[in-house]
Amino acid sequence: MTTEIQFDRFDEEWARRVVGRTSPKGIDGYLGITVTELTAGRLVAEMEAREELITALGTMHGGCLSALDDHCLGVIMYPVMPPGYWAATTEFKINLLAPVTGGRCVATAEIRSMTRRLAVVVISVENNGRLVALAQGTSTIVAPKQPANAGDRN
Amino acid sequence: MTTEIQFDRFDEEWARRVVGRTSPKGIDGYLGITVTELTAGRLVAEMEAREELITALGTMHGGCLSALDDHCLGVIMYPVMPPGYWAATTEFKINLLAPVTGGRCVATAEIRSMTRRLAVVVISVENNGRLVALAQGTSTIVAPKQPANAGDRN
Amino acid sequence: MTTEIQFDRFDEEWARRVVGRTSPKGIDGYLGITVTELTAGRLVAEMEAREELITALGTMHGGCLSALDDHCLGVIMYPVMPPGYWAATTEFKINLLAPVTGGRCVATAEIRSMTRRLAVVVISVENNGRLVALAQGTSTIVAPKQPANAGDRN
Amino acid sequence: MTTEIQFDRFDEEWARRVVGRTSPKGIDGYLGITVTELTAGRLVAEMEAREELITALGTMHGGCLSALDDHCLGVIMYPVMPPGYWAATTEFKINLLAPVTGGRCVATAEIRSMTRRLAVVVISVENNGRLVALAQGTSTIVAPKQPANAGDRN
Repeated sequence: MTTEIQFDRFDEEWARRVVGRTSPKGIDGYLGITVTELTAGRLVAEMEAREELITALGTMHGGCLSALDDHCLGVIMYPVMPPGYWAATTEFKINLLAPVTGGRCVATAEIRSMTRRLAVVVISVENNGRLVALAQGTSTIVAPKQPANAGDRN
Repeated sequence: MTTEIQFDRFDEEWARRVVGRTSPKGIDGYLGITVTELTAGRLVAEMEAREELITALGTMHGGCLSALDDHCLGVIMYPVMPPGYWAATTEFKINLLAPVTGGRCVATAEIRSMTRRLAVVVISVENNGRLVALAQGTSTIVAPKQPANAGDRN
Repeated sequence: MTTEIQFDRFDEEWARRVVGRTSPKGIDGYLGITVTELTAGRLVAEMEAREELITALGTMHGGCLSALDDHCLGVIMYPVMPPGYWAATTEFKINLLAPVTGGRCVATAEIRSMTRRLAVVVISVENNGRLVALAQGTSTIVAPKQPANAGDRN
Repeated sequence: MTTEIQFDRFDEEWARRVVGRTSPKGIDGYLGITVTELTAGRLVAEMEAREELITALGTMHGGCLSALDDHCLGVIMYPVMPPGYWAATTEFKINLLAPVTGGRCVATAEIRSMTRRLAVVVISVENNGRLVALAQGTSTIVAPKQPANAGDRN
């Protein structure tokens, strides 16, 4: 299970700008998602299962973990694509494995396959030492139609 | 493609409490998701692709549509399960079909299969007359371990 | 849930060649898959859950239904693509809903979304009046690199 | 990404009977699938992309890889469940990553999560040193209704 991918490029500067920053707005800002590591084909992102995200049933809304996965799927692609390219999340599948009642959720994403057109990413999320979600998704790589946007590209 | 399901029960009162109400908190509250129709095995929910949810790329973050789908997957199950039962979203798969840049997103969910243990739900989301997401998910039906919670059960 | 797709083309001759024919070889031949209807964006294919396909547990091997779905996902694309184009099944997700113990399996596939690069297809399989599988998959549309192959293109 | 699962049991005798044996019939027999390793929560299975399975387009029918994955998903469960229990493949999602034109396909499956009711399995398939498929599936664990069947249980 160890077919390694060689990435042609990795935009370290882009990665440096993203790591450690939490967006002030948007669903990623609302969830407090912070990318804590970003290397070629690998990303770690974290969020807190804070009280606001816990439903009346006492567990975190599943939509938080699926939004977290979707976010990772987008961000992981940018530094390994040529400048100006755009990654569209085509689809993903997520298994929610165990309820989250609080604490930190740590998502680890990995590009497992990448061609000129498509990449496949797997993501696992841990919470309090337990695997709580497992996802597999497909990103479509789109060539630029317009000058690259230097800002937050997810 | 029309194998109809017969539902043993439908909790009209529960449905009535949910329809038209937007949660004041949680990710569904943040997204402004409102269930607009809820009948046995069928649910319509809407949310606005408001400016706050649009990323720097000019399109709504995909996490919003996946959270919307996850929300539908949970809510659709409650009125057709016996009182006190609990629906855990086991997994779902979503295809993001077209970018959303604004306007209303209308999700239509349908239970396509239901046994004592599992249900399969399909969800399509439209925005400005276009299909923007298509999802298929599995809900695990769990018998009560403790007295039913009368509140918001997603 | 009724955003209709307009197909630019439909190769009736190709469809006519495929309908009613069972391949003498390959996994589709082994399974005895026969396409019984093929119109723009819609396909019906059938196979018999014959004794050879039933496992020691008394039910048809799930691999038969997933291969049937994969087959539909490929064949449905050809008549609606320009000549010489190639459809690669990128991914699909299948729910196996009920055991099949014999009788005919009838798969109905429908293209629900189609752009220049990607199509999303949903497939439902019925057996003895019961829904036994539900699938959703993504096909990547690839422009020709070499002269089109006139034969069986799946 | 290393939350390890502890398996309560592992039926070594069952595993020994399965490893190295190719079924004389059924879709797994047709495909020539042979389980080559089977330990607690991990399975390796192989099949040859022989000429019969190659379509007119020159590549192996995708249905072969999906049937291979489905087969792994079933077999991996049996030795870690209590005697007489039954594993029903609820659903799986597969990405087909690269065409197979010949040679051996080696699938490695791993149980990534297991509760009393459900297990989640990930499968990767390699062919000639390249990753050709990646899958993630859910198995439902069903308690015995009737005496356990000692034979091939997939």
